[in-house]
This record gives sequence, structure tokens and C-alpha cells, in this order.
Amino acid sequence: MPKKVFQSVAIIGVGLLGASLGLAIKKRKLAKQIIGIGRPGSSSLKIALKLGAVDQIATDPAAVAQCDLVVLAVNVGLFPQIFRQIAPDLAPGAIVTDVGSTKQEVMRWAARNLPRRVVFVGSHPMAGSEKRGPRFARGDLYQNALCLICPPKIRGKNPDRCHQAVDRVENFWKSLGMRTHKIDPVLHDKWVAAISHLPHAAASALVLHAMAGHPEAFIAVAGGFLDTTRIASGDPAMWTDIFLTNRRALLASLKDFSRILRELQNAIRRDDSAAVNKFLTQARQNREKILHDCTVGSKKKVK
Amino acid sequence: MPKKVFQSVAIIGVGLLGASLGLAIKKRKLAKQIIGIGRPGSSSLKIALKLGAVDQIATDPAAVAQCDLVVLAVNVGLFPQIFRQIAPDLAPGAIVTDVGSTKQEVMRWAARNLPRRVVFVGSHPMAGSEKRGPRFARGDLYQNALCLICPPKIRGKNPDRCHQAVDRVENFWKSLGMRTHKIDPVLHDKWVAAISHLPHAAASALVLHAMAGHPEAFIAVAGGFLDTTRIASGDPAMWTDIFLTNRRALLASLKDFSRILRELQNAIRRDDSAAVNKFLTQARQNREKILHDCTVGSKKKVK
Repeated sequence: MPKKVFQSVAIIGVGLLGASLGLAIKKRKLAKQIIGIGRPGSSSLKIALKLGAVDQIATDPAAVAQCDLVVLAVNVGLFPQIFRQIAPDLAPGAIVTDVGSTKQEVMRWAARNLPRRVVFVGSHPMAGSEKRGPRFARGDLYQNALCLICPPKIRGKNPDRCHQAVDRVENFWKSLGMRTHKIDPVLHDKWVAAISHLPHAAASALVLHAMAGHPEAFIAVAGGFLDTTRIASGDPAMWTDIFLTNRRALLASLKDFSRILRELQNAIRRDDSAAVNKFLTQARQNREKILHDCTVGSKKKVK
Repeated sequence: MPKKVFQSVAIIGVGLLGASLGLAIKKRKLAKQIIGIGRPGSSSLKIALKLGAVDQIATDPAAVAQCDLVVLAVNVGLFPQIFRQIAPDLAPGAIVTDVGSTKQEVMRWAARNLPRRVVFVGSHPMAGSEKRGPRFARGDLYQNALCLICPPKIRGKNPDRCHQAVDRVENFWKSLGMRTHKIDPVLHDKWVAAISHLPHAAASALVLHAMAGHPEAFIAVAGGFLDTTRIASGDPAMWTDIFLTNRRALLASLKDFSRILRELQNAIRRDDSAAVNKFLTQARQNREKILHDCTVGSKKKVK
């Protein structure tokens, strides 16, 4: 039987990511018990319990008191409020982490709102789906994917405790079959702006443009449009939080993206076949390089 | 045995689209013979012959003389030259069509370069792949997809001949398992700018932005980025021709796309959560509507 990485894990928010995490922990027997915490009346809690993603459910944040690991798996915008709610009840030495998509503000909120007796380590497992809710949970969602980890700034007089907490969180994700990479939160936010948040914004804008101009054209929509815009079906509330907590990096990415598109517009306008070809060739070569370099969670998804 | 729709079909260019067309015609026994025409020394011709996508191969455009249907399946930019090359040898009453992605310029080139004894009907089967070459040909590539058809302007004194040619081309695509929709070339080009050419430009720009800013971020790339940018792996030469022959509509789409992104930028800049949420909600709702409305060739591809 594998060594328990944690005794008792609280998962706050049992949507797609939270419930998938519960399933993965259970499958690999990484904790003695998992408590799913959610809002009173939440149907997700009941579904997660029924799916076996959690062992117990609770609507009182005080349930974190018995846990040595607490994972936030709700929309990033709710983090400050949850940090404040759980702060009084967190056990000494507990580790708090998350699965949120932005890190700079999250790390700041954690430092401001969590007590010194716990350590917050930022986590961003690069796994997900445009689907939402525990109904779509999968025990292998995290497997083979990358988890970006943001260690906290060393506070107070016990750096060892911080380092140990980072190691334990890193081991936890590795035990779930993930690769890990430690990264500064500012750089993290720039990376994900480029490879995730800007693509989401672009996909959404493509849908809005097509719909505004020629909605009747949709009879002709094929696989290309659907693939390019798939992520635009993601949860708007979740993505609003992501966009607004990554404002600076996303605005910088949007600005550079617009510049690149303007260059293309200019090349097309002056009928500059060589410049258009160069633009497309560089894009293709770079994408082939990415396909070659990246190790994607679910190989079968790569086209 | 099914009725032959045409006796002898010439396919000029036996890459992915041309060779797939050959395979589909053969599978459904829609013609007595298929001649693949290509450049001297072209390896595609030999591969297409070996795959059984064509019965004969030729490098002399005069081979069209014996055909009652001629299909152009090369990059759109080569069309004027090919129209001029085949013009002297086309049989009286032959029908010429194509599988190109833009139609306004193509229809103009055909009207200018083809002799009056033939009829050109524009076709745009909405099927394809980012892959190129006959090696990736599939006999079911066109099946269940939509073919947009642009009837020619009635020239000379024989409108019946034009109508009959359009009917025969429409039947031809239907016999291959496609749905068809007749459309004016100007409107066609606006539709495809919105649902195909702009998405291609955006996908390419996303790759270029990510690569320019943080190439090391690619270790974290997941399914979302790869799906959103899949079409950026398309053939640059083919897409250069598409962009430049659809200049006006694509520039209009790029302009509107930039406007939509600017609105998002402004909403993010002023931390307007309601506006960002509205943007994302409308995008998601519209995409769900598209998924619901559109009938996509390959259902299994829809996510």
C-alpha cells in the first residue's frame, strides 16, 4: 500500500477540477480521507460524494480544522473570501494550496489573509476542460500533465518549514502522475497569459465576430472553427476571474497579439505575398516545434 | 451499379483534397475513369496512382481533352495559369469546377480565361485538414460535410446549359455524401473570412505571440492551446493564396476582430467584471448555439 502523502485532505469546491482531484487521490490512495467543502444546498457536493470523489461533505469552512492539506478548487475570485473564512480554523502546520489559473494575486491574498501557522504553496495543474461540474470529473485528468508550483516568499523565522511544505506539495502532484515545475508567480502569470488566457480571449472574440457578421454562415462551420473556438465554451464566471486577476500580463499579451495581427493586415493590404507567407511559415514552424517539444497530458488529443 | 455522374474526370493537383476526391469517386463508382494531372516529376502523382485515387496520371494539361469534368485542386493562386493552360484543350460541353477556398476572384478568373464552350461552376467543399499531400488522403474526407456552390453568371445565349452544369456539379457533390448550398461568391468570401480565414490568422498570431514572448512556456502547453492553434499548422503557400485572394473580406473581418478585442481590453483595463463576464457569456452562448445548429462532417470531432 503506498505511503499516504497526507492524512486528511479538504477540497474546497468540488466542480470538475475538485472532483477529479478527489477521484485521483482515492485511486492512488494518497490520503486517509477527503472532505469536500461547498456551499449549502450545492448539488455538486452530493454528486461528488455519490461519485466517490470525496469521503465526506461539509458546508462549514471550519471542517478544514482536521485536515493537513487544504486545496482551493473554486474560482480564483473567491479566494480572498475563502482564505478569510478558513483562517481561524486551519490546524498548525497545515498546508494550503490551490488549482487556480493565476498566481501573483493569489499568492498576495494568501500572504495577507492566512495565519503564520500554515504555509500556502501556489499550484496550477495545467489540466482542465471547457466542461464544468463534478459530472465531468475524471480520475486521470491530471495524469501526465504539468503542475506549475509557486513557492511562497519565506516569511518569519522558519524557512525550513516553507521548503518542506513546497516539497510535500510537489510530491503530492507527482504522486498523482504529474510533472512539476517551480516558477515565480509573476513569470507564471506571463506564461499562462500567452499560452492560455490570450487564446481564450481570441477564441471568444472569433465566435463573437462570426456571430455578429454572418450568423447564417454557421451551416458551413467545420472542424477547424470548432477546434479553434473550443475553449470559448469554458465557464464565463471562472474565466472572468482569471482575466481580471491576470490583468497586467493579459493586457500585455493582447497588445502584442494586436500588433502581430496589424502586421499581417498591412502585408495583406499591400498584397505582399512574401510577407504573408513568412508570417504563416513562422507560425507553422513554431507550432511544429511546440508539438515536438511539449509533452501533453493526453497524447491522444494532440493533432 | 450506380449511374455514372461523369464519364471521365480530370483532377488537377492530387494533394490531400485531390487524392481524397479521387478515392471518394472510385469508392462510389461515380466515373468511368479518373486522370490525375500534376507537374512533371511530382511525387504526389505517383503516390495517388499507387493509392488508387486515380486511374491514370498525366503531366500535360492537354489530358483534360478527354474529360467531361475537370476539377482544380491546387492552390488558388495557380488557378489563372491553369485556366489558361487547359483552355485550348477543353472539350465542348465540359464542366470545370474546383475545391478552392475563395470564390470571387476564382469566378472572375474563370470567366476571363475559360472558353465559352465550357461552364465553370465554383465549388468549395468545407472539408480538409492541416495535413498536406496524398499520403493523408481519405475516401470519406468529404462525406457529410457541406459543399458551397457558386453558379456562374449567365453568359451568352444559353442559360439552360449553365443551369444544367450547376445541377450536375451539385449532384456530383451530393453523390459523394455532401450537403450543398448555393451562394453568391461575394457572400461566400465573407462567410469563409469569418469562419475559416480569420480563425487561421488568429491561430497563427497566437503561436507567434507565444513564441516571441516566452518560448520556455511551451513546457506548460496543454490541449487548449494545441486545439486553438491546430489550423496554424496548415500549408503556408496554400493559405497565402487564400488570404490574398480574399483580401477585402479578410481585412474587414480582421478589423472587426480587433475592435472586439479592444472592447475586451478596455473592460479588463477598467476592471469591469460585468463587461468581461458579458463578453465571455455571449461567446459561450453563441458557440453552444453553433454546436447545436451546425452539422459537422465528422461528428466525432465535435467537442
